[in-house]
Amino acid sequence: MRFVSQIFQPVVSIPKGATIKNIEITCKSQKLLVECGLVRPTSAGLFTILPLARRAISKLENIIHTCLEEVGAQRLSLPCLTSARLWEKSGRLDDVGPELIKVEDRHGKKYLLAPTHEEAIADLFADISPLSYKQLPFLLYQIGNKYRDEHRPKHGLLRAREFSMMDAYSAHATHTCASRAYDTVTEAYRKIFSTLHLPVHRVQAPSGDMGGSLSHEWQLPAQVGEDSLAVCPSCSHAALSTDSSTCQQCGRETKEVNSIEVGHTFVLGSRYSEPLQANYIAADGATASVHMACYGIGITRLLSASIECLSSEKALRWPLAIAPYSALVIGPKEGSKEWLGHGFDRVQAIARQLEQHGFRDDVIVDDRHALTIGKRLVMADRMGYPYIIVCGRGALESPPRYELHRAGGEAPLLLTVGELLHTLRQDRENREIDVEYSETRVGE
Amino acid sequence: MRFVSQIFQPVVSIPKGATIKNIEITCKSQKLLVECGLVRPTSAGLFTILPLARRAISKLENIIHTCLEEVGAQRLSLPCLTSARLWEKSGRLDDVGPELIKVEDRHGKKYLLAPTHEEAIADLFADISPLSYKQLPFLLYQIGNKYRDEHRPKHGLLRAREFSMMDAYSAHATHTCASRAYDTVTEAYRKIFSTLHLPVHRVQAPSGDMGGSLSHEWQLPAQVGEDSLAVCPSCSHAALSTDSSTCQQCGRETKEVNSIEVGHTFVLGSRYSEPLQANYIAADGATASVHMACYGIGITRLLSASIECLSSEKALRWPLAIAPYSALVIGPKEGSKEWLGHGFDRVQAIARQLEQHGFRDDVIVDDRHALTIGKRLVMADRMGYPYIIVCGRGALESPPRYELHRAGGEAPLLLTVGELLHTLRQDRENREIDVEYSETRVGE
Repeated sequence: MRFVSQIFQPVVSIPKGATIKNIEITCKSQKLLVECGLVRPTSAGLFTILPLARRAISKLENIIHTCLEEVGAQRLSLPCLTSARLWEKSGRLDDVGPELIKVEDRHGKKYLLAPTHEEAIADLFADISPLSYKQLPFLLYQIGNKYRDEHRPKHGLLRAREFSMMDAYSAHATHTCASRAYDTVTEAYRKIFSTLHLPVHRVQAPSGDMGGSLSHEWQLPAQVGEDSLAVCPSCSHAALSTDSSTCQQCGRETKEVNSIEVGHTFVLGSRYSEPLQANYIAADGATASVHMACYGIGITRLLSASIECLSSEKALRWPLAIAPYSALVIGPKEGSKEWLGHGFDRVQAIARQLEQHGFRDDVIVDDRHALTIGKRLVMADRMGYPYIIVCGRGALESPPRYELHRAGGEAPLLLTVGELLHTLRQDRENREIDVEYSETRVGE
Repeated sequence: MRFVSQIFQPVVSIPKGATIKNIEITCKSQKLLVECGLVRPTSAGLFTILPLARRAISKLENIIHTCLEEVGAQRLSLPCLTSARLWEKSGRLDDVGPELIKVEDRHGKKYLLAPTHEEAIADLFADISPLSYKQLPFLLYQIGNKYRDEHRPKHGLLRAREFSMMDAYSAHATHTCASRAYDTVTEAYRKIFSTLHLPVHRVQAPSGDMGGSLSHEWQLPAQVGEDSLAVCPSCSHAALSTDSSTCQQCGRETKEVNSIEVGHTFVLGSRYSEPLQANYIAADGATASVHMACYGIGITRLLSASIECLSSEKALRWPLAIAPYSALVIGPKEGSKEWLGHGFDRVQAIARQLEQHGFRDDVIVDDRHALTIGKRLVMADRMGYPYIIVCGRGALESPPRYELHRAGGEAPLLLTVGELLHTLRQDRENREIDVEYSETRVGE
């Protein structure tokens, strides 16, 4: 069980117009994450992820991990330092230009801090060749840091220079097989975003620098987003904005919304396998380039985008599945009648009950007894804990009753322990049903 | 459930004296990890961690995570890119010299790829100052990549240029408090190493470049190790080798063994907090430097060191707790009498039973039916799966019986399902008792 007083959470207040490390505050997720002591910039586009945000990221990584492993993906780790030679071969060394962070080792050998790993993975396939068609397909993914020397990093974690991504790569003998994997990973993406209850739209996209024959962006509507979507209020179809405001699918008028790209998927074909000689031997003995597809989700970006999407200017809100702690327990103020009546033992007992009933390793106790319940409730609301349980005056009744506050602002409920545990179980189950349902209709 | 045929595991054979990517094979962990398709060098000192090794690392990370969180540590993530200015302030920019990988961004600002984060964490404390003595102590850790431009990277993952580490830092108001945290983390280290059943010695060490008042190295004996220990066969006391061969503790003669440094712990005092101005305000209102301690475990190094320590030249052996899969199930050869008798269904049923009885998400099935059981057993032994279950001729008996092979070479047992599950449970429980016991006596 953790206690709020022990958490490393440097809460600060940034006056309007002030900067932090010379960085302007330009959006609410950036402001809330810094002010609530969850993230701390070290310089432009570089961030320390503090413990509570780190917990949220671990939860997010677990969801991504589970959904990808379910469809057969295998995790690996490629080095962040990629040989510049591989990017010369693919032709991207010059194309990407100043956004690449280049490194030279003590012997003068050139590397780059990889913004993405298509070259590295194609080189791995080439390195272990000859691959037989019988060994294919593979679906491999990693979770780790990526680097992009943005000219103007901004919006905090939304546009950083060092950021965490899940990137996946698949290798196939045929285009048909690559398309099938693309559809499978697409379903895994839908499950990831619906687990988070985020209205992420999949939209067809130009392949750009990346190359290949087909690509989709995964976009989360948010006012601060730098992309623009045309969403049809009638059929939910979404597309990247064009001059036309007519829905391609049903012909009605679309509505324009700003959005944040949180993922991308590409069918690459032989864009990288050919220059890097990632070949396989087909059934007939002929040698051909491996067909590839690749898939990315920005983990630190998705975290901040979800906060951007769900929070108010004043208070953080998280997808339930990734809140740093799902439940916070607040006890009475030291010296109050309630404190003298049941003190701190009752608070810990309630927290233990929650731990045993669905909140294992997921409960935190606000043990700052010197503060009033009201003051701590205000701070808890700002932090966005999904369930806040107050052990106050009602705990003196027989049977004792506890207040349950749910993020979102409904009136609190006064419940016995049994009712509390029952209500929490039901609430979480309802949200899961929601997920099942929404999986059929995360907008596209 | 996973199948061997689907795993991305490029098995290769490296002839004696041959190199891979111009890198010499100089030790058995390096050779076995590459040959068994677990790790693949991309250039000198840089490695792709392939899926089975990645699983082992995730298990290792979980053990470290659990043992540290138990003593109150909180995970965070500091950026890998540290501003060179911070290392100027501490004076280490020149001291460490050519091993530092330096990076310049598009605006000419200087960074380094951090080999360690004392400066970064001290800067974080300084950044959120004024800290009150009431907020202290903190114990923070991270798990991630570190960089060191070794002049001659060698022995595979044992001396890499990009490697994964757990590094922890604590901040205190007094030296006494720092010492107490040091002892607590020391106990967590003992638990980590005893969970792995590794005979890791804690030895007092000079503080070197790092500075501070007290430090210990955590050393795992292995022939290929570059350090040298004097271990007392009588009282188990170990120390870094000196000219004397007399045990400092009991006066008997010591034995010299090579060893690998897998961890390090330091009491730093104000070595970094002073130059970086990480201050706190004491109870009497005075400002003073924070007392710090730091702690590291090389994760990729510990993985390879444990393999170096446990394996033979011919076959991998893992600490039970971090084997990529704890159990492998082998079915009959296609077309054999056993295949016709119970086919592949029985194999999957046994694997499912194991999944349900203590091996959740930890069973792999060798589905390469075209190969004989004997051939697959040889390969499984080389991979070092702790428990190998063969579903062969005995499975035709009534009741069906299965062979249980345990890594280590005892004669296989022929067991019914009930006996099999019982034996496995007992075997694992015995090993856990072992851990409890050995915790009292991991050599020092």
